Amino acid sequence: MNTTTLTLSDCQARDASDPLGALRNLYDIPADTIYLDGNSLGVMPRTAPARVAEAVTAEWGRDLIQSWNKAGWFALPQKVGNKIARLIGAAPGEVVATDSTSVNLFKVLSAALTIAAQDAPGRKVVLSERSNFPTDLYIAEALCKERGYTLRLMDNDGSQPAVLGELTADVAVLMLTHVNYRTGAMHDMAAITAAAHAAGALTVWDLAHSAGAVPVDLNGSHADFAVGCGYKYLNGGPGAPAFVWANARHVDRFWQPLSGWWGHAAPFEFTPDYRPAAGIARYQCGTQPILSLTALECGVDTLLAAEPLGGMAALRAKSLALTDLFIALVEQRCAGHGLGLVTPRDHAARGSQVCLTFSPQTPLQAGATLPPKGAEVTLGRPGGDLVRTNATLGTGGYAIVQALIARGVVGDFRAGDVRHPDILRFGFTPMYLGFADVWHAADQLLQVLQTGEWQQPGFNQKHAVT
Amino acid sequence: MNTTTLTLSDCQARDASDPLGALRNLYDIPADTIYLDGNSLGVMPRTAPARVAEAVTAEWGRDLIQSWNKAGWFALPQKVGNKIARLIGAAPGEVVATDSTSVNLFKVLSAALTIAAQDAPGRKVVLSERSNFPTDLYIAEALCKERGYTLRLMDNDGSQPAVLGELTADVAVLMLTHVNYRTGAMHDMAAITAAAHAAGALTVWDLAHSAGAVPVDLNGSHADFAVGCGYKYLNGGPGAPAFVWANARHVDRFWQPLSGWWGHAAPFEFTPDYRPAAGIARYQCGTQPILSLTALECGVDTLLAAEPLGGMAALRAKSLALTDLFIALVEQRCAGHGLGLVTPRDHAARGSQVCLTFSPQTPLQAGATLPPKGAEVTLGRPGGDLVRTNATLGTGGYAIVQALIARGVVGDFRAGDVRHPDILRFGFTPMYLGFADVWHAADQLLQVLQTGEWQQPGFNQKHAVT
Repeated sequence: MNTTTLTLSDCQARDASDPLGALRNLYDIPADTIYLDGNSLGVMPRTAPARVAEAVTAEWGRDLIQSWNKAGWFALPQKVGNKIARLIGAAPGEVVATDSTSVNLFKVLSAALTIAAQDAPGRKVVLSERSNFPTDLYIAEALCKERGYTLRLMDNDGSQPAVLGELTADVAVLMLTHVNYRTGAMHDMAAITAAAHAAGALTVWDLAHSAGAVPVDLNGSHADFAVGCGYKYLNGGPGAPAFVWANARHVDRFWQPLSGWWGHAAPFEFTPDYRPAAGIARYQCGTQPILSLTALECGVDTLLAAEPLGGMAALRAKSLALTDLFIALVEQRCAGHGLGLVTPRDHAARGSQVCLTFSPQTPLQAGATLPPKGAEVTLGRPGGDLVRTNATLGTGGYAIVQALIARGVVGDFRAGDVRHPDILRFGFTPMYLGFADVWHAADQLLQVLQTGEWQQPGFNQKHAVT
Repeated sequence: MNTTTLTLSDCQARDASDPLGALRNLYDIPADTIYLDGNSLGVMPRTAPARVAEAVTAEWGRDLIQSWNKAGWFALPQKVGNKIARLIGAAPGEVVATDSTSVNLFKVLSAALTIAAQDAPGRKVVLSERSNFPTDLYIAEALCKERGYTLRLMDNDGSQPAVLGELTADVAVLMLTHVNYRTGAMHDMAAITAAAHAAGALTVWDLAHSAGAVPVDLNGSHADFAVGCGYKYLNGGPGAPAFVWANARHVDRFWQPLSGWWGHAAPFEFTPDYRPAAGIARYQCGTQPILSLTALECGVDTLLAAEPLGGMAALRAKSLALTDLFIALVEQRCAGHGLGLVTPRDHAARGSQVCLTFSPQTPLQAGATLPPKGAEVTLGRPGGDLVRTNATLGTGGYAIVQALIARGVVGDFRAGDVRHPDILRFGFTPMYLGFADVWHAADQLLQVLQTGEWQQPGFNQKHAVT
């Protein structure tokens, strides 16, 4: 519990002296909105409309097929990949921006399983967390089924790794998401990778909630494979292509199974036989969505604009200051309204989001045992907005988020299940949020709780706020 | 050989009375250009710039995550798929627009192999053509390797099917591209599918050069699986998402291996276990590139605008008239300059392109034996423009295409190999080409040949024309 009384003017003063504050001008953010959902879909870079329009009207409309060379379409996945590499501790030539996170995970998990089968035959388990992002588990489940592996899931809620004790001699691959999407808990990539290697397992990391949000050092961590998302903290636009990285020691060892023309060693020879390109280029497959890839480059460029200001290290410091502030304000100002903190207080274990539970019967107890979620089923959306397909309201978290959205504070809601509580999720993107934004967000949350307006009809219904 | 002398005014008269002629106004085509490369990258629909700008600035920039519902992002792959279905003889709910052609081929070939293993165990061959589009062969090669199948390639140049004799008792899946990318030869989908089924094999069809170009009747042909391209005759923009179809009798039988969240039965429940959606929705995987998908919808809508004018049947009649005319004009006016015709004269065996060979020593002989290509290596580009990585010039076809581009007639070039000649490729898109365009294209070709300007320095060099 923070004991200093925090005021709006304190926050405004911090903004005034924040060297990163001007980065917000790189984006076009809706007026009267405090956007705490950049962990779901990042905001639009100011350059994106003109740049995408140029790709549409000049590159496509005017130059047509000549743009493969003239506009650099063919090189674009590697060009954008090289920019992303600077944010995640990868070297030039080690990353491509391509396909979706799920498809890329299929590629690298296939590669990891094949390499593990060569280096450590007999290991037949992929180890992950039940709280991992579902699509990662779906990809792993089908691939394990196909290849005769077992997908073993740890029940650790993403916040209590306990990974070390689970790294048994049958584990071929440890597949983790670096920052948990529900809780905001962050794993220690270097320590866990070292433990996995010591136990004879390879690591596959999903950086969906890390890239552009927290410092990542793939090579420094000696990680094996990684994938990540283009449309969250990289601000690449809806469904922007994802990215994929493989450690140099593995990258050329395997034909990833999605062996399309763009990953061929000589894609312009039109030979009938597949021969994979050297390096990460072989993790490309079919023709990429150039318009979406163009928008992604705009988003990644905004992150690179922070490099002269200290880059990811400076952004990380600000991110922690923002989430610390939000936690402190909620604790100071919203005490007694039934909120609970899920996200770890420990900086080393926290991503760039703050996740709360809501249980009106339970006074705020930071770090309290999470209230169990009953049998209600509430249906959330990966995009952050909600599609509710039944009328069950859960514990009210959904309605609070909707009431906040109506007040211009955009967070999102993640429904719980029999094991886990509903989550009110607030992402704090250091690129475009300030300290006064955090103050106002907490203030609006307080007002929603004090007024009880979240209990009004509408906030608990599908599409109450659109 | 056509014996009637064809004149420009004849062609202009045909344009004047062409009920499809006004469809050209749906597109923004560069001035002074006759674009014969819609089989590589379709031109830009007039609606695309504004519609994509709306997706960027309003859906992404202003509404952000609310657009998942408000703008219908989640339903977009199926919405666009339903539109494509109308062009290819599929029913509503049977097609999704998603991922790339290569990735979709991986999905359906995986499904076909699994189903074949259940229904016809012991068959261990995937049969295709060596002249099939390379990325299709690459995907099949890696998948066959992974699953212990043999990829057997027929040497039929895509124009002499000879498929029936190759359907031996070990063939599990026959994988063909409906219209060959190099020759423009078209297979009889219904007859070949029937033969494959009679022989106990399943069929996988690639419609990359068919959808939007020729009538396709997937259900009427009782085909098993199909994929196709969004950026060729569907005019969906560079790297537009592809599409995938599975026959209703197969669609629910298999978890395709790219089991991402968008193909889940209840993607918003965030359950850790994968449960595939019913129907074609399970062929979706990860988050789709919304901006590129938005442009694709604009392109597909242009095709649907032809429905009141007779739809694909009327477009087919015009396409054949255009390609007939080009062949006749080349034969009449360019005789003696060494051009040879590769594309079948038989309407039933012709797609919507005309492919020529060039051998200056050989007078034009329609249907002549193709001149063998020597050891020269010339490197072509899937996008149609060329990247030449050495100075070998082949037989001059590349330079002729470049000289034509300099004159505003955009075709493309496909390098040959030791088996096949270099190809000068001209796609005739009935949506936006007229008869006078064809006359001018042939006229420019004649001038390039008569003047010998293709032999000028520059036209045979990389990026001679950009």
